[in-house]
Amino acid sequence: MRNDQRQDWRRRDRRQADELRPVVVRPGFLKTAPGSVLISAGETMVLCTASLAGELPRWMPKESTKGWVTAEYRMLPGSTSPRSPRSDRPDGRATEIQRLIGRSLRAVVDLEKLGPRTATVDCDVLQADGGTRTLSITGAYIALAIAFRTLFPRSESRSESCPESGLESWPFTDSVAATSVGIVNGTPLLDLCYEEDIDAEVDMNLVLTGSGRFIEIQGTGEESTFSETELHSMLALGRKGISELTRLQNSILESH
Amino acid sequence: MRNDQRQDWRRRDRRQADELRPVVVRPGFLKTAPGSVLISAGETMVLCTASLAGELPRWMPKESTKGWVTAEYRMLPGSTSPRSPRSDRPDGRATEIQRLIGRSLRAVVDLEKLGPRTATVDCDVLQADGGTRTLSITGAYIALAIAFRTLFPRSESRSESCPESGLESWPFTDSVAATSVGIVNGTPLLDLCYEEDIDAEVDMNLVLTGSGRFIEIQGTGEESTFSETELHSMLALGRKGISELTRLQNSILESH
Amino acid sequence: MRNDQRQDWRRRDRRQADELRPVVVRPGFLKTAPGSVLISAGETMVLCTASLAGELPRWMPKESTKGWVTAEYRMLPGSTSPRSPRSDRPDGRATEIQRLIGRSLRAVVDLEKLGPRTATVDCDVLQADGGTRTLSITGAYIALAIAFRTLFPRSESRSESCPESGLESWPFTDSVAATSVGIVNGTPLLDLCYEEDIDAEVDMNLVLTGSGRFIEIQGTGEESTFSETELHSMLALGRKGISELTRLQNSILESH
Amino acid sequence: MRNDQRQDWRRRDRRQADELRPVVVRPGFLKTAPGSVLISAGETMVLCTASLAGELPRWMPKESTKGWVTAEYRMLPGSTSPRSPRSDRPDGRATEIQRLIGRSLRAVVDLEKLGPRTATVDCDVLQADGGTRTLSITGAYIALAIAFRTLFPRSESRSESCPESGLESWPFTDSVAATSVGIVNGTPLLDLCYEEDIDAEVDMNLVLTGSGRFIEIQGTGEESTFSETELHSMLALGRKGISELTRLQNSILESH
Amino acid sequence: MRNDQRQDWRRRDRRQADELRPVVVRPGFLKTAPGSVLISAGETMVLCTASLAGELPRWMPKESTKGWVTAEYRMLPGSTSPRSPRSDRPDGRATEIQRLIGRSLRAVVDLEKLGPRTATVDCDVLQADGGTRTLSITGAYIALAIAFRTLFPRSESRSESCPESGLESWPFTDSVAATSVGIVNGTPLLDLCYEEDIDAEVDMNLVLTGSGRFIEIQGTGEESTFSETELHSMLALGRKGISELTRLQNSILESH
Amino acid sequence: MRNDQRQDWRRRDRRQADELRPVVVRPGFLKTAPGSVLISAGETMVLCTASLAGELPRWMPKESTKGWVTAEYRMLPGSTSPRSPRSDRPDGRATEIQRLIGRSLRAVVDLEKLGPRTATVDCDVLQADGGTRTLSITGAYIALAIAFRTLFPRSESRSESCPESGLESWPFTDSVAATSVGIVNGTPLLDLCYEEDIDAEVDMNLVLTGSGRFIEIQGTGEESTFSETELHSMLALGRKGISELTRLQNSILESH
Repeated sequence: MRNDQRQDWRRRDRRQADELRPVVVRPGFLKTAPGSVLISAGETMVLCTASLAGELPRWMPKESTKGWVTAEYRMLPGSTSPRSPRSDRPDGRATEIQRLIGRSLRAVVDLEKLGPRTATVDCDVLQADGGTRTLSITGAYIALAIAFRTLFPRSESRSESCPESGLESWPFTDSVAATSVGIVNGTPLLDLCYEEDIDAEVDMNLVLTGSGRFIEIQGTGEESTFSETELHSMLALGRKGISELTRLQNSILESH
Repeated sequence: MRNDQRQDWRRRDRRQADELRPVVVRPGFLKTAPGSVLISAGETMVLCTASLAGELPRWMPKESTKGWVTAEYRMLPGSTSPRSPRSDRPDGRATEIQRLIGRSLRAVVDLEKLGPRTATVDCDVLQADGGTRTLSITGAYIALAIAFRTLFPRSESRSESCPESGLESWPFTDSVAATSVGIVNGTPLLDLCYEEDIDAEVDMNLVLTGSGRFIEIQGTGEESTFSETELHSMLALGRKGISELTRLQNSILESH
Repeated sequence: MRNDQRQDWRRRDRRQADELRPVVVRPGFLKTAPGSVLISAGETMVLCTASLAGELPRWMPKESTKGWVTAEYRMLPGSTSPRSPRSDRPDGRATEIQRLIGRSLRAVVDLEKLGPRTATVDCDVLQADGGTRTLSITGAYIALAIAFRTLFPRSESRSESCPESGLESWPFTDSVAATSVGIVNGTPLLDLCYEEDIDAEVDMNLVLTGSGRFIEIQGTGEESTFSETELHSMLALGRKGISELTRLQNSILESH
Repeated sequence: MRNDQRQDWRRRDRRQADELRPVVVRPGFLKTAPGSVLISAGETMVLCTASLAGELPRWMPKESTKGWVTAEYRMLPGSTSPRSPRSDRPDGRATEIQRLIGRSLRAVVDLEKLGPRTATVDCDVLQADGGTRTLSITGAYIALAIAFRTLFPRSESRSESCPESGLESWPFTDSVAATSVGIVNGTPLLDLCYEEDIDAEVDMNLVLTGSGRFIEIQGTGEESTFSETELHSMLALGRKGISELTRLQNSILESH
Repeated sequence: MRNDQRQDWRRRDRRQADELRPVVVRPGFLKTAPGSVLISAGETMVLCTASLAGELPRWMPKESTKGWVTAEYRMLPGSTSPRSPRSDRPDGRATEIQRLIGRSLRAVVDLEKLGPRTATVDCDVLQADGGTRTLSITGAYIALAIAFRTLFPRSESRSESCPESGLESWPFTDSVAATSVGIVNGTPLLDLCYEEDIDAEVDMNLVLTGSGRFIEIQGTGEESTFSETELHSMLALGRKGISELTRLQNSILESH
Repeated sequence: MRNDQRQDWRRRDRRQADELRPVVVRPGFLKTAPGSVLISAGETMVLCTASLAGELPRWMPKESTKGWVTAEYRMLPGSTSPRSPRSDRPDGRATEIQRLIGRSLRAVVDLEKLGPRTATVDCDVLQADGGTRTLSITGAYIALAIAFRTLFPRSESRSESCPESGLESWPFTDSVAATSVGIVNGTPLLDLCYEEDIDAEVDMNLVLTGSGRFIEIQGTGEESTFSETELHSMLALGRKGISELTRLQNSILESH
């Protein structure tokens, strides 16, 4: 019977179970920040801006030769329907997400090569239709790579905000991209939109490097559980999606 | 001598003293909010989204037949160079500005015709190069007008968020637009960019209706003062700029 | 018909349209602060205290030779009827007002002559009946002038809080006073009390120097608009009131 | 030797050890609040305003027939030299003090006779020279008694804020006054000023009813201790001072 | 070479790589809460208390027939060496953890059977030596099970806080336990203590039901990455540890 | 008649009016903090942990040769029935109590002998049944004495957190203990439990040194008053209880 259900069932936007939503990327969207990108996947749209500063966070030793990469994530009030109230401080969900984005970027940055600088990537969700945290990671990598170029010796357009010294070698050790997978009505699906996410029994976010190693795996059965077999199906779907996103990131950074 | 200075002096972007920066408007930028616009004037870019809700603010009597229009204003961290720290709650400046935007919109809305609804216009500055508050007002009017259409009986695309009842008559009594004027090195200038604003002896924001009546006049000499003659020069420049913005607003609303 | 209305109409306290409320000033009300004044205009009563400190605000460069003047404004809970709750932090209105008071004072202070000091003027409204912000400005000037005297070489009562060095020359370049004007039932009126303010179609605050130059003009039509002719009527009324306040300030400072 | 010290020693203002500072009371200082008093003892000056509201605090049952009396205490920034930063929310010290004032008033109010009303007494310290909390209690009683009169059937000036119903019987069961005592250089002293308070080994606040019963006794040896004999000396001094304050309160309330 | 390292290397407390720390459980530690447990694993000690209330969270519909289970997590200041400053509101880390604990419990509670009640489990860490979040989950299940018994019809000691109605059937659908695994110096280890956690290249928290299904998998390579093979090694270690914890939970609940 | 009532009346736990609840002390409960104690009196249970740090509070001069002792007090949510919500910041009551604990400890510590160190004692109430603040003081002394031993030259287990230098002489000048007394139904009682505290007309907390001198006396008649005779009865009861607690403290510190 469950089988029959599956035959009838289709994704709202007629995607295949293992198909990503179309991704559109506008690198260099802003002139104020050294790196920025307006990225959308289906109806989800995130503005990622990467800023660079010569100071280190207070908790780091002043004489540190290493730098730091951090992220902030917030949804604009109009990004949802109905409007979500602006919150006085990052709520629990935003805090979790911005910590995830920061960890994901730091896993592929050699902080020693970055030198005593702080890179801050702001991920502001302009329109939300599921997958905002994973799209933020995918976009943040592009924005940060563009920002790092302004510090690079071969660059002609060095950042005015850090004019005194550039980078001696490229601080990224790999690229990073992310996607969501889930189990909806018993079927594993790639890249859930909001309606699918609401219906999902299991929700998993995967963050992988361009070379296919894991940075983060977060699988949750909200009021539900999942088997090891289902875990493996989801991992396979996620790998497929992330390799496509990695190719897209590379092609954009080559042509920008 | 002062005269000589003026002859040599030119605006950074070669504009005339009474010339607005080029304005680009993308109405309907988001699908989540009933009304939205991405508006830019030179390098200043603001995302205005207008949301509608069936509830009234708590301070209004529950049985009110009138509605309310309010606004929120915030600058995204990456909108300035260097990055500005994110302030989740509005600081003094943001509070002043969002109160100004709200007052300006309410001056041209018949709250009785709006009925017991709250319209909230969020003005999020994506990129800041001077004049963010006046551009927010100019854009907010467009976003709110698009949102009101979804409530209007003739509309085919009624808002899902307020499906139960539409508007019986158009709630706007006039249009509203705003611009800044100032005195820089003794010369009155229209529509100051950030660098001009920093140098200005006097800074004035003007909010006028489409029919030319005043809604708000805010003139400030920060560590400076100005004469009644200078006041009149600034009023004339502002009138000219606002009438051009009014024409632009009308043409966009006609074609959207 | 409108004419007839005006003939019948009288101000609650039988003032003429261009008449200020009686102003009572008690300079040196407190002994703790170097400058203080208890000032009242009709039923509005404000305690202005000016304090001086040797430190500069954090945002100023440490080696600055210039000083800073700032203000805080708050209404005591019992200043209104019914009592207003004490607010956890300055609300939007208080923030706007204290920024206005600070700007108005700085427009007539030569910060270079003040030297690396911070002057803070606290304006605490003990009783509110309209015009609290403009009365605060008028009183703040007196309190600050009294405080500056304690720093002045000719003074015999130098401030203990800054004993190390006095002022070499008087830091005020001019005096400053303020009043409100408005249009009530179509009639321009000077110095609105609370009931008039509630009824006003247009509310305007004017801050002028003793020599008659503008520091700030803030005119607002809350749910209303005004013409250029009405603007000029209000400017004329305001000028008259402020020149009277200026004379009062001078006579108090001469005799204190 | 200790004896010799005592012979030489005199209080800064030449008071006897058991002498109160001169108290000046201006009842009805404000028109906005139903009860108010500006009270000073030496250089300490407090504005006490008593407000009445028809609502009860949220934590009380809605159908309660009893009322509530509460207090707020704050020091204005200019009340100390040098200026103290404004703390909008009560710090630890202010919290302790306003809880003490509220308890002291409730000990002499029959909340059943007050009926379902909230009385709030705001004690704002305009100038601080020691003893602000005890002077606040002494003044708060006067302000609250004046406010209660506006509710009393025999009163001609019933409060507009509670017009619907007056009091059937007088809610005070006794009067309340307070003073401080302390041990300075081994000598028990009545009504410490700030300099004495700083030097005190022991600091005690006493709140007594007009009929001489204890409401509150708070004795503290900050980095010091005291014997039972010293405790008794302090109690005797306090009783003397409070009986004088009680007489003053009565005479003011009779003549006001 | 890597092999050689592993031979020399030993865990600080001489545990095997797949060995849990000794767990000590004191069920019913407090009398105030219906369910409580003091649980320790090695030097990590957590006090879990489960409270029951008849109200639902505000965001749930009032007429809901389902209940809610939530959790709060906090570390006491003295739980670490040196002392950690008290954070009264949950920081980012505490927020993440208490959301995880709540989700984990809800995955094995049938909220319909719980009925319109809120169960709150407070996990206060008295002493921290790694694994506080997973030990909190393991202890929270025991505390909540003890609390549910007080609601159960067969129970003789029904909760006084919910006397009106008991449970008709047992709301747990399964048990839940959790542990951490990680990769330290290239070796996968079970149940990391603090020093091992600091050194770990990869840190993974696993939450499983008693029947072996996944509730949550959170694997993170902080400034590092991991392969799919390493993922599988960690999953196997975690399964082993959790099955031991499940047996311990069952034996305690049988004998309590 | 009152006499008859007293004859019939008995304390819930059959204690005599002058009898303390049984006190159980577990010194060294935690390994993370240099000093700790789990102390209970009847059903009231408090965890006191004393931490030592080499820094001084910001408000102390950097070159100070004296140290500081401070305390924090909080009730865990599960310590009451029903559960009390966790508060975002210390509420008024907690603030008062932690200030009292700190003052009480400082009265018996020679801050000069402590040297430039900060000792922080955290008092976390695990279970509350009246007398939490006085039990916190009694326990805090034990915890702090244990912590000071780690700094003492003769100690073999010097604190790792302050390894550089020990104490030259013992910083305590006396011991400190505290208890509550009250008047319930007209009868003075020692060491009130929660139910007695609720019924008490007068509530008094006494903090005394081991040698019998007063540190703090706080007597309050909430909605009630008390006579000097009643004050003396309460003082006598309190002295008796505190001398017993002092003996207990000494015996524990001798044997630990």
